Amino acid sequence: MRDFPQNPTIGVIGLGLIGGSVAQRLSRTHQVIGWDPSSSTQEAARASGITVVDAVANVCAADLIVVATPLRAMRDTFVSIAAGIGDRDDVIVTDVGSVKQPVEGWAHESGLGMRFIPGHPMAGTEFSGFEHADADLFEGATWALCISEQTDIDRWLVLAELVIRAAGARIISPTGPAHDAAVATISHAPHVVSSAVLNALGDGPHFALATALAAGSFTSITRVAGTNPERTEAMVIENATNTASRVRAIADQLHQVATELERGASSIDLFADAAKVRARISAMAPASEHVTLGADARERLIGLAEAGRHIVEVDLAQRSVGAL
Amino acid sequence: MRDFPQNPTIGVIGLGLIGGSVAQRLSRTHQVIGWDPSSSTQEAARASGITVVDAVANVCAADLIVVATPLRAMRDTFVSIAAGIGDRDDVIVTDVGSVKQPVEGWAHESGLGMRFIPGHPMAGTEFSGFEHADADLFEGATWALCISEQTDIDRWLVLAELVIRAAGARIISPTGPAHDAAVATISHAPHVVSSAVLNALGDGPHFALATALAAGSFTSITRVAGTNPERTEAMVIENATNTASRVRAIADQLHQVATELERGASSIDLFADAAKVRARISAMAPASEHVTLGADARERLIGLAEAGRHIVEVDLAQRSVGAL
Repeated sequence: MRDFPQNPTIGVIGLGLIGGSVAQRLSRTHQVIGWDPSSSTQEAARASGITVVDAVANVCAADLIVVATPLRAMRDTFVSIAAGIGDRDDVIVTDVGSVKQPVEGWAHESGLGMRFIPGHPMAGTEFSGFEHADADLFEGATWALCISEQTDIDRWLVLAELVIRAAGARIISPTGPAHDAAVATISHAPHVVSSAVLNALGDGPHFALATALAAGSFTSITRVAGTNPERTEAMVIENATNTASRVRAIADQLHQVATELERGASSIDLFADAAKVRARISAMAPASEHVTLGADARERLIGLAEAGRHIVEVDLAQRSVGAL
Repeated sequence: MRDFPQNPTIGVIGLGLIGGSVAQRLSRTHQVIGWDPSSSTQEAARASGITVVDAVANVCAADLIVVATPLRAMRDTFVSIAAGIGDRDDVIVTDVGSVKQPVEGWAHESGLGMRFIPGHPMAGTEFSGFEHADADLFEGATWALCISEQTDIDRWLVLAELVIRAAGARIISPTGPAHDAAVATISHAPHVVSSAVLNALGDGPHFALATALAAGSFTSITRVAGTNPERTEAMVIENATNTASRVRAIADQLHQVATELERGASSIDLFADAAKVRARISAMAPASEHVTLGADARERLIGLAEAGRHIVEVDLAQRSVGAL
């Protein structure tokens, strides 16, 4: 990665909520070229000042290529990119997909090899499409860049430094499998639950009355069920085993509570247990840590992620990171 | 209710988040006297300009008495109020509890009779206590005032008119059983679910990593699990049958999705179903309706609630309501 340019051009493939936000944000500091299959999205992106090209192949001249297509289009996109960049080595390809193990597999099959770094910005809303894109979407957000046995640490550091500096995000560095297990807990299973709560209203008694009574707690819990259902379905299916495990862990608790309530229990431990989990979360105070990366760079970075640490600074010359 | 004063004095028993907010709000237009068992709450309420008395009996001189104690203290409070008001008829007693059938029973047993109107403002936050009270908490919120065979419609209208005018809320007029079934769907079961999602993080793999990755969707869905666990437990136990039914309806869906995911399903209907429920909610457009209440007043009011209509105007002279 010694040849990677100081001021790379950025290519963004897919200009929806996330890709559009990446393109808008990086346009502030870099030359950005984008592509999207939708002509109305192309027009909206051009109108906002982004250079839009008419084929994926034309994005492949960029130094950093960000794949922000739906998961279902990613495998084909990687094949196109691999063809477009040929045997160029001075390039980084990353993605923003919400599941990392399948994406790593597709990137590997396509021949992108060590040029690929799997990414996942933990940002988004219940809305989708370029019209909801926001250059500030990643400000302070956590952006996962995954580490594996194959990861080129120099390339990883270049990308991490750019994401921190140009997108305003904080980096976390888990393995792909750890990422997928963790997001099943904090995103994919909650999406399933949110939809199930909404369906229980749809199938339940007094629909209109209940809807009229719905207040803050219902709005909060069903907000994520407003996400595009096809996108949520794809995400959950690509992370099926992890999501099934967490969904069942939640379902088991719910069945137990239902049984306790039916039996006239005078106490329900679930709520006090949840208060304990919240206390554990509150106890996770940030601690400033500076890590110089040597031969054990992979293990050190994975260890930081497992400790819940965010990387907020990268020194490329020193090959070191600052974590909180 | 012809003798009910034009400018009633208001008594508020229990000055936590809801009672404190009621007292602060109604202080703008009425004389308010409050009571709370906690001396620090008494002090905080006095400091904010509320007249605080030293016994429940001293609140009973008020024309309208709002019981805002925890559910578990309500039965005894009703007995104290019944003793305090004696055989006075020119008084209205209401409450703000989140479950209405048990409350109606306690009020009946205590001898409050037709002087009692069961109430439930659909407002609140994950915080509790007078220090979080907010005079604007009910602005635009839905406030249920329940109707039964025993309801004195004149008294109900006086209270509804006051809540709309002085608290800024909109009224909904279900029966107690319908209210309890509906809030199980939109509040009590969601509270259980929110805690179960948090517990699945606590018991799951990669706790620190998952916590560090948690973003908007997890925060939204677990927000209500931040509510005081004892209060949530009491609320759910008092509405056990309804809550158990909705919790099981959600658990059944979750088990089905888990099974589908484990079997490698290529589609999950849950998400598209949820989008349909959301579309049904969006289709519930408000429609302005003016209803003059005659001999069938109870049925008309209950019918408005079952249609999801909010009462936004009460004309006491005409004995009519305006609904949206």
